[in-house]
Amino acid sequence: MAKRLLEHKIGEFFIEEEPFYIPLGKEIEMFEKAFKSKLPVMLKGPTGCGKTRFLQYMAYCLKRPLITVACHEDLTTSDLVGRYLLKGSETVWTDGPLTTAVKIGAICYLDEVVEARKDTTVVIHPLTDDRRVLPIEKKGEIITAPDEFMLVVSYNPGYQTFLKDLKQSTKQRFIAMDFDYPKPELEQQILIRESGVDNATAGKLIELAQKIRNLKNRGLEEGVSTRLLIYAGQLIVNGIDVMEAVRAAMIKPITDDAAMQMSLEEIAVSIFI
Amino acid sequence: MAKRLLEHKIGEFFIEEEPFYIPLGKEIEMFEKAFKSKLPVMLKGPTGCGKTRFLQYMAYCLKRPLITVACHEDLTTSDLVGRYLLKGSETVWTDGPLTTAVKIGAICYLDEVVEARKDTTVVIHPLTDDRRVLPIEKKGEIITAPDEFMLVVSYNPGYQTFLKDLKQSTKQRFIAMDFDYPKPELEQQILIRESGVDNATAGKLIELAQKIRNLKNRGLEEGVSTRLLIYAGQLIVNGIDVMEAVRAAMIKPITDDAAMQMSLEEIAVSIFI
Amino acid sequence: MAKRLLEHKIGEFFIEEEPFYIPLGKEIEMFEKAFKSKLPVMLKGPTGCGKTRFLQYMAYCLKRPLITVACHEDLTTSDLVGRYLLKGSETVWTDGPLTTAVKIGAICYLDEVVEARKDTTVVIHPLTDDRRVLPIEKKGEIITAPDEFMLVVSYNPGYQTFLKDLKQSTKQRFIAMDFDYPKPELEQQILIRESGVDNATAGKLIELAQKIRNLKNRGLEEGVSTRLLIYAGQLIVNGIDVMEAVRAAMIKPITDDAAMQMSLEEIAVSIFI
Amino acid sequence: MAKRLLEHKIGEFFIEEEPFYIPLGKEIEMFEKAFKSKLPVMLKGPTGCGKTRFLQYMAYCLKRPLITVACHEDLTTSDLVGRYLLKGSETVWTDGPLTTAVKIGAICYLDEVVEARKDTTVVIHPLTDDRRVLPIEKKGEIITAPDEFMLVVSYNPGYQTFLKDLKQSTKQRFIAMDFDYPKPELEQQILIRESGVDNATAGKLIELAQKIRNLKNRGLEEGVSTRLLIYAGQLIVNGIDVMEAVRAAMIKPITDDAAMQMSLEEIAVSIFI
Amino acid sequence: MAKRLLEHKIGEFFIEEEPFYIPLGKEIEMFEKAFKSKLPVMLKGPTGCGKTRFLQYMAYCLKRPLITVACHEDLTTSDLVGRYLLKGSETVWTDGPLTTAVKIGAICYLDEVVEARKDTTVVIHPLTDDRRVLPIEKKGEIITAPDEFMLVVSYNPGYQTFLKDLKQSTKQRFIAMDFDYPKPELEQQILIRESGVDNATAGKLIELAQKIRNLKNRGLEEGVSTRLLIYAGQLIVNGIDVMEAVRAAMIKPITDDAAMQMSLEEIAVSIFI
Amino acid sequence: MAKRLLEHKIGEFFIEEEPFYIPLGKEIEMFEKAFKSKLPVMLKGPTGCGKTRFLQYMAYCLKRPLITVACHEDLTTSDLVGRYLLKGSETVWTDGPLTTAVKIGAICYLDEVVEARKDTTVVIHPLTDDRRVLPIEKKGEIITAPDEFMLVVSYNPGYQTFLKDLKQSTKQRFIAMDFDYPKPELEQQILIRESGVDNATAGKLIELAQKIRNLKNRGLEEGVSTRLLIYAGQLIVNGIDVMEAVRAAMIKPITDDAAMQMSLEEIAVSIFI
Repeated sequence: MAKRLLEHKIGEFFIEEEPFYIPLGKEIEMFEKAFKSKLPVMLKGPTGCGKTRFLQYMAYCLKRPLITVACHEDLTTSDLVGRYLLKGSETVWTDGPLTTAVKIGAICYLDEVVEARKDTTVVIHPLTDDRRVLPIEKKGEIITAPDEFMLVVSYNPGYQTFLKDLKQSTKQRFIAMDFDYPKPELEQQILIRESGVDNATAGKLIELAQKIRNLKNRGLEEGVSTRLLIYAGQLIVNGIDVMEAVRAAMIKPITDDAAMQMSLEEIAVSIFI
Repeated sequence: MAKRLLEHKIGEFFIEEEPFYIPLGKEIEMFEKAFKSKLPVMLKGPTGCGKTRFLQYMAYCLKRPLITVACHEDLTTSDLVGRYLLKGSETVWTDGPLTTAVKIGAICYLDEVVEARKDTTVVIHPLTDDRRVLPIEKKGEIITAPDEFMLVVSYNPGYQTFLKDLKQSTKQRFIAMDFDYPKPELEQQILIRESGVDNATAGKLIELAQKIRNLKNRGLEEGVSTRLLIYAGQLIVNGIDVMEAVRAAMIKPITDDAAMQMSLEEIAVSIFI
Repeated sequence: MAKRLLEHKIGEFFIEEEPFYIPLGKEIEMFEKAFKSKLPVMLKGPTGCGKTRFLQYMAYCLKRPLITVACHEDLTTSDLVGRYLLKGSETVWTDGPLTTAVKIGAICYLDEVVEARKDTTVVIHPLTDDRRVLPIEKKGEIITAPDEFMLVVSYNPGYQTFLKDLKQSTKQRFIAMDFDYPKPELEQQILIRESGVDNATAGKLIELAQKIRNLKNRGLEEGVSTRLLIYAGQLIVNGIDVMEAVRAAMIKPITDDAAMQMSLEEIAVSIFI
Repeated sequence: MAKRLLEHKIGEFFIEEEPFYIPLGKEIEMFEKAFKSKLPVMLKGPTGCGKTRFLQYMAYCLKRPLITVACHEDLTTSDLVGRYLLKGSETVWTDGPLTTAVKIGAICYLDEVVEARKDTTVVIHPLTDDRRVLPIEKKGEIITAPDEFMLVVSYNPGYQTFLKDLKQSTKQRFIAMDFDYPKPELEQQILIRESGVDNATAGKLIELAQKIRNLKNRGLEEGVSTRLLIYAGQLIVNGIDVMEAVRAAMIKPITDDAAMQMSLEEIAVSIFI
Repeated sequence: MAKRLLEHKIGEFFIEEEPFYIPLGKEIEMFEKAFKSKLPVMLKGPTGCGKTRFLQYMAYCLKRPLITVACHEDLTTSDLVGRYLLKGSETVWTDGPLTTAVKIGAICYLDEVVEARKDTTVVIHPLTDDRRVLPIEKKGEIITAPDEFMLVVSYNPGYQTFLKDLKQSTKQRFIAMDFDYPKPELEQQILIRESGVDNATAGKLIELAQKIRNLKNRGLEEGVSTRLLIYAGQLIVNGIDVMEAVRAAMIKPITDDAAMQMSLEEIAVSIFI
Repeated sequence: MAKRLLEHKIGEFFIEEEPFYIPLGKEIEMFEKAFKSKLPVMLKGPTGCGKTRFLQYMAYCLKRPLITVACHEDLTTSDLVGRYLLKGSETVWTDGPLTTAVKIGAICYLDEVVEARKDTTVVIHPLTDDRRVLPIEKKGEIITAPDEFMLVVSYNPGYQTFLKDLKQSTKQRFIAMDFDYPKPELEQQILIRESGVDNATAGKLIELAQKIRNLKNRGLEEGVSTRLLIYAGQLIVNGIDVMEAVRAAMIKPITDDAAMQMSLEEIAVSIFI
């Protein structure tokens, strides 16, 4: 049940089964070339549009292990790089996920990097210029990344406030790729596959999702993700009434505003009933 | 008297007696299907309307242990996941309640999750997508949740300020279920059962509660909870004068404003005298 | 001289002599019923009006030990619940005052609870619903409170700012009892007993206190407490001139404003000279 | 050279020589009565007007040791009460100055108490009501203060901002005594004694000080202290030109404003030349 | 793979191969004279214009090791100077990069020094006046820098806000050298060499870069760096369509604004198609 | 290379060679008298006007060791006074620079004292009144300063904001001495001596410095320091073109504003060409 990150067991971070992924455009080719050119990549796009799935797919195709770190306000350099821990009467160094990724030549994915503390964005600088090194200041070591190592960050432009934007000196170290929700036909295909819902219902759920997404910045902070569509589908397949499922999975999670909930309810009714 | 959380003694977290719970609508079916579909659930609703009781009931019905964590501003990832502690001359890892819940396949309930520090909301992300894993970064381990594990959070939309809202990338990982105070007849039934108050008094207490709740956002920050109704009932049963009991349990705890206390007093008088 | 809190020496926290307390109203009966119904109690009222004395009296009457914690901005959950301390080469768990109170079935009094950090207000939640348990997360233990355990908090509504109010989800866990300065005749009796001042002087000091309290919110932040009245009495009994005593104990401690001090001085002169 | 605070060596904190102090009014009697009545005292007054000297004098007269703590923004309860320190392989408790003062029955002087962190003002509460105890939470001990223990705090009302005022629940635990600069004749006497300056020069320095103090709140934040007067006297006695001495000790330290410095210079010239 | 910073292995920090660098003006002579005169140097200029490369080149020419520290908000004096670490049962001092640089007579480069905490800017003061010493307060040592030691900081004037400017007492310790993007012909040469792109495409990429840089402060926070130009070139050489490469490397990384992206796209189309 | 501060090696802090210093006025006499009268001194003046050099000169003349501490936002009392450090299995006390200075009777110079945390300004209070003691609270010791000990602080009035001013209760413990840039003839002498530049060029550099200093508060935050003048001289002597040297040492370090740089450039051209 428990897997050890730290003994360079490369195999464990490999994606063993091919993840289900249908390309949105030329993103696969661009990612492959960036990998070949050893360029760091930034994935830009809204919540739940498939960035994580895409990376799992690319890690599978490129046959590289994938190490994911969800960034947050309290994530420090030590959390990424490693720290000394007391074991018995000795202090033992423990690699952080970024150090492990550099050592085993993995794809390291820093999800929502803008949330991390500033020191963590600086620690990746030397990995993203032609030096491709990771200085581990606490150990006085500099590790050179192998050619297979790749750094990927994600970033949701809609969220950033003035105070929480990435510095240009960080941004300009990545090529950037835009992501968005899949096209309707494609999303319908994904929805059917992942939830088992029938074709007709899937079509209606997609239609509803489209309409909800059009309300982004017109009362909704964010559109509805593919993930929530799949939740709705799963509830329906498990016997929940379609309107109940839509309420629980596609309306209540995305807004607390009663009037907006009412509007979304009306849109749903017009589609399903 | 003291129960050990940490040795995976699954049994201890089981609810042994059936909790008293009367359904408000179809919430039981929805919760069962979510459990079956392995979907994380968010309970939305005001203070003291029965969310905790509902969860105890569902844990009893689903025969799963229930581990509850009351979230607060200083709750860190380590508080949830675990930490190394010095025992004698060695550091020993101690699982946090979330890790225990994942290991024993419990229902883990994060009460008022929005109060927790941001790092704690990020740590639940990998548990709420199709990976269903809990990375324990300090140990370099990744634990896969068994099918029986379920994550539930609660959230009171009325309280959230701009600064303290959940991120959409967190919200969109849950199906949401609304909760509210029970319907009058139902609440009266609960009140009689829990406090032992007679039917007539119970009816009047309910009537008063209804009128108080109507003042929410018209001078009252929040309505009066079922819990306070029961407190009033208990005091009355123990021989306290009904108006004294109402003052102590239903008026003074919910507002410090003298004029508002006076108005509530008048409403109470009109009902009881 | 030093008493050990931690070895569950119940006896030490008992109030051995009957504290001097004259009831203001029906507060004794209400408190007894709350104790009997195992309801948590919130005492609301201004500084120095006798809340602490009342609790000592109730602890004496109910024959329960009393453990008091003065809350402040830096009071943490660990300060209440306990922590591991290094003793020799081992870490030893040390119960905090709340844990001790739960274990020995004491009345635990959190004075000015609103001053404490938010995590401490959350830790009392499970003690104040029907579970009546105290989770000690650092030890992985859950302690069930015996029937004799009672939680009491105090709260001065006049002080609270928007940022420092108790959350409704905390407030609605207590029945509330209002406290105010004792009625003049009663306060005079207390003053004579505690300071030894003669009846005539006591009457004039009470008259002055009444006039000062009427200025609350009209230039004075707070009225003068019974404690300061007793200080004035003690100084007079020890031979200090009455006006000097009044200045030192009843005027200068409560305001720095020169004009207000002058007004209070004039009121005092009109009464004493 | 180094004196050990911690082994209860009472003697070391005694003031051995009678400090030079000339009473301003009836402050000595008031302080003696407060000591006798075991009342805590608050000294109110501007910087450098003799509060510390007064306390040294009273400690000498009352034959009690004096322990002084200069409060500041980072002063914590542990700094006052004590903490565990690692010595060799064991943790040893080390009393803080307040605990030492309670144990040896000293006068404990918290200078500028309003500067301390809020937790420190709460820790003195139980010492200032009729319990007269000091709870040492980290050791689980409660120490009862002997009758000789006395708590004194100082407080400069001119400085306090809204955010940094003492809480009424703290203020109302002290009797208050006002202090101000000594009367001219008295200050002249002090100045001559402490600096050795001749009578005529002393008179002129006092005249200048009076004029400077009149400018408080009219361009000057604070008047000039007796200490700075003595500095000026000392420089003059050591051969510095009187105007140079006045500039260095009485003008430049109290204001950075060039125009105000000019005005003070002119006043000085009109007096000395 | 791992290099040890700490054992004064001077050789490891030497730049072994001559870095590719084409002078922009007289910066090489100025730097050599500053090195000879033992003057600290501040490099001023935008992100990605070649400051780091210049320093690598100068370190190679002057045959000095180069130690680089990327500064950030959480960089402390200890991170620069060193700290005690627990190894087994002993604490061992570990030099920080600045101490190492002083000891081995390296060029120490503090990149974006303004980002560091204030204590770090003060620690470099004694190294930048005629004392040329580094006090290591935690060890009670003062190290004198050898003549070969040189301190260099970088600073991007465009970024600094009022709150994050360097103090004049820090700034006035450095001679300052301006850097900017290379002249077009020179940048084209660099671009061809580093990416392998053909001459015609390189010319067009340079033309685009010039136009983008003209938009700085007219909708763009910062111009496009030489680094991003090289990324674009590398993608094109690897077979990515030229417009796709320009989007990924020169448009999306520098702005999130949809309208600005459109404008940049149009400029690119007018040049390439 | 490394000197040990802590074993009271008085000799090491002595200034062995007479520092080059030309008096600006009567500052030497004033300082000597203050030393003789055991008065603490505050040096007021702009960056780089010679305060540090003056102190080195006085320490040399008075034959006292000099210990300098550059203050900053994170400087704590422990940094000044000392702390316990773990060495092997024992904690060993390590004196801070202030304690060392008191013990060896040195001149202790707290440079830019206003930058330090508030607790550090309070720790110097007992050293600056007639007690002349340093309480080491963590060790429970009080050290009496020998007559030779002297405390000196510096302070730049131009910088202080409302939030960062010294408290009057701190300021009024020092006599104050103003410092400013040296008079032109004197500064020219210093410049020639320190940089080796010829007399004519020195005269022009001084002329430029005068004109730049006149722009203080008219677009420049601060004038140009003598140090930067010497830098310019050194570059010129090392063969750098005079205008290049002026740009690098006297224009670019003091302002980032392009228009202001242009104006300064024109002034320089008018003088040198």
